[in-house]
Amino acid sequence: MSPPAILTDVLSRYTTTPALGPYPHVTLTFAQSLDAKIGRRNGSQLILSGKESMIMTHWMRTMHGAILIGIGTALNDNPQLNTRHLPPPPPGAAPYHLPRPVILDAHLRLPPTCKLLVNYKSGTGRRPWVICATVSDDPERTRRLKALENAGARVIQVSGLAADIMDEGVSTLPIPTILEALYASGIHSVMVEGGARVIGSFFSAKTPSGDSIVDSLIVTVAPTFVGEDGVGYGQELGKKTQGFEYVKAELIGRDMVVAMIATPAL
Amino acid sequence: MSPPAILTDVLSRYTTTPALGPYPHVTLTFAQSLDAKIGRRNGSQLILSGKESMIMTHWMRTMHGAILIGIGTALNDNPQLNTRHLPPPPPGAAPYHLPRPVILDAHLRLPPTCKLLVNYKSGTGRRPWVICATVSDDPERTRRLKALENAGARVIQVSGLAADIMDEGVSTLPIPTILEALYASGIHSVMVEGGARVIGSFFSAKTPSGDSIVDSLIVTVAPTFVGEDGVGYGQELGKKTQGFEYVKAELIGRDMVVAMIATPAL
Repeated sequence: MSPPAILTDVLSRYTTTPALGPYPHVTLTFAQSLDAKIGRRNGSQLILSGKESMIMTHWMRTMHGAILIGIGTALNDNPQLNTRHLPPPPPGAAPYHLPRPVILDAHLRLPPTCKLLVNYKSGTGRRPWVICATVSDDPERTRRLKALENAGARVIQVSGLAADIMDEGVSTLPIPTILEALYASGIHSVMVEGGARVIGSFFSAKTPSGDSIVDSLIVTVAPTFVGEDGVGYGQELGKKTQGFEYVKAELIGRDMVVAMIATPAL
Repeated sequence: MSPPAILTDVLSRYTTTPALGPYPHVTLTFAQSLDAKIGRRNGSQLILSGKESMIMTHWMRTMHGAILIGIGTALNDNPQLNTRHLPPPPPGAAPYHLPRPVILDAHLRLPPTCKLLVNYKSGTGRRPWVICATVSDDPERTRRLKALENAGARVIQVSGLAADIMDEGVSTLPIPTILEALYASGIHSVMVEGGARVIGSFFSAKTPSGDSIVDSLIVTVAPTFVGEDGVGYGQELGKKTQGFEYVKAELIGRDMVVAMIATPAL
């Protein structure tokens, strides 16, 4: 068993070529409905993709150094971010690579009881890294930081960022700074599983030379309509999603999966 | 050569079972980007689908009694609505069935010089039918009606409709009345090629028992993003697109095509 061709075609250079820095290779991935909705207005979990494309997502996890989510997804879905839907490796083969879980959590709202930390403590998951804004002297904030560290999290404070800036809106998340911090910690490839806000932030983020910070895009389109209860990424994105070039498409179960790569800025 | 399986699977009942009335069988079809855009804000033509799915659309045309568009599409694209992209029929075989062109045109804005009327006059296209609101005593309107009839159009006035109602907004187009008129004229199946406004009108239209007036849905998803210059159907549709059930999906060239059928109202 190995990852489907749509993944290996697009992502193989991640494993063959280490990222040159200062950023890791970045894959942005999300599931959407036909009407381009990726979540629900009320924040409740919206499961769009079928079992087969869920398995594809788990293969994708084995191909990245880290898997990054936002605090919104962490709170709504309480995910495990592991590879539990994959078939067991053949006898004698190494276990699948588990990506490092990374949570963008400016205000340290992640509950110490979340599955990611429970799995780490029980030896079935890797240690989660929590990216937060530089800590102020707020005692409540300090208490939360200690509680997360006691629960096993590695808390990375991204200096120079005020917590209020990080929460202001989609486009203000300092994605390049966060990615530099991950690269400096040895992460060479990151898979980003959005979340409307995180998707918007990564689509907006640019390198100093104006290139997209996202290298590859894997979009799963589920054959369904969500309608007005859904949260989209369409109009809000503006022109940000331009600059991606089609590589391959594949039907996986009932879902259609499209792989695209960023085209360099002119 | 014959239509792809995704069409025959969904539409074969159209050819085997005549519509019972008072409406024809209705297939709604459109091409969209990944971010669910179907046109451009400024109304200029947006070509999303590739050559292969264009050919699929031409096969679809051979399978319907009529092909219906709105005046917006007629003015922007000046379409021919024929089957010119299909391979020639085998020697001795009958020519492909050409669907009747039907244009929703409340105010009779269709130019008498449009390709549909030119092709009809030159014997390469079927006579277009123009659906308009009941004519008032406005002399300019009467002049336009005569000009269209002189150019070869059959003008069908849908009684009981005021022209201003027809232009008010997406959901006010009296689709059931129009479809009854087409059925009464011998049309048993209609393929609707929207247009944002026509798509919205057909998604909204219900039978008196609350069922969708659309029987089948063929959506082509092109692997591209249009962004803020695009016109979508997402948020505007509300819950109207619910009640469609997945039948089949197929990769056609670079595009993904999804076939769905309406589920009866509960």
